Amino acid sequence: MKRILLCFVATLLIVTNASSKWQTASEKSSSAIRAVLDAQRDAWNKGDIEGFMDGYDRSDNTVFVSGDNVTRGWKTVLERYKKNYDTPEKMGKLTFSDLEMNMLSKDTAVVIGKWLLKRSNDEPHGRFTLIFKKTGHGWRIIHDHTSSA
Amino acid sequence: MKRILLCFVATLLIVTNASSKWQTASEKSSSAIRAVLDAQRDAWNKGDIEGFMDGYDRSDNTVFVSGDNVTRGWKTVLERYKKNYDTPEKMGKLTFSDLEMNMLSKDTAVVIGKWLLKRSNDEPHGRFTLIFKKTGHGWRIIHDHTSSA
Repeated sequence: MKRILLCFVATLLIVTNASSKWQTASEKSSSAIRAVLDAQRDAWNKGDIEGFMDGYDRSDNTVFVSGDNVTRGWKTVLERYKKNYDTPEKMGKLTFSDLEMNMLSKDTAVVIGKWLLKRSNDEPHGRFTLIFKKTGHGWRIIHDHTSSA
Repeated sequence: MKRILLCFVATLLIVTNASSKWQTASEKSSSAIRAVLDAQRDAWNKGDIEGFMDGYDRSDNTVFVSGDNVTRGWKTVLERYKKNYDTPEKMGKLTFSDLEMNMLSKDTAVVIGKWLLKRSNDEPHGRFTLIFKKTGHGWRIIHDHTSSA
């Protein structure tokens, strides 16, 4: 009887430990991803598109989808942003809200959220789905699907 | 020298075998996912929204993002489709094209593609990003971000 109890307690400890380790890893990933998004917002609001683009994986496979368009490759996504937001007025002030993260595996996560650009003449807004991957340089966006209201 | 050569050949065989196994698993996943999308298209084109919805994971966590809206839960997504496409005219004929799949882990994949609805009065179209998960019932969509041209 004692042995069964001991075995039960040991199993419980192992399971609890594994689960708390997963939680810790997930919380660490969540904070790291949140930090990437905060840095993107801050860079954007300083007019620093290159800094904003640091959030994306510097890979030819990085994908940005919007409306009926697909933009492929980090450099091409950067050029798209530079072309569409070539003045501080167009860039406006960016905020992210309603962020939700779900781990897909230990090194990939999906994040959804709202984006809003406060500009003098309008306030475009909408939603994004971001797929993050844990790379050698930290968590980076490998896929961005952004839609507008 | 012989031993080194033998070791080299053995390593090569192991690596090649592992790589071909991965390729086979990836090809199998790709065909299975393709079959889910084909079944969705066919169901839609028969006016069968419930059949179309079979492609989505029957979970409260299933997410559909479009424009500035997030719809949560399989049942709510079904209701949204039923409400927005309540006549054969509104449903039109659906096609998917430019499909591309990337495995994110052994049981998750991201698919992008174009969607087009041929209707008598208009032809709405755009892009989607789908996150598929391998569930007990096969590959199912757990996250859909759809945008329009």
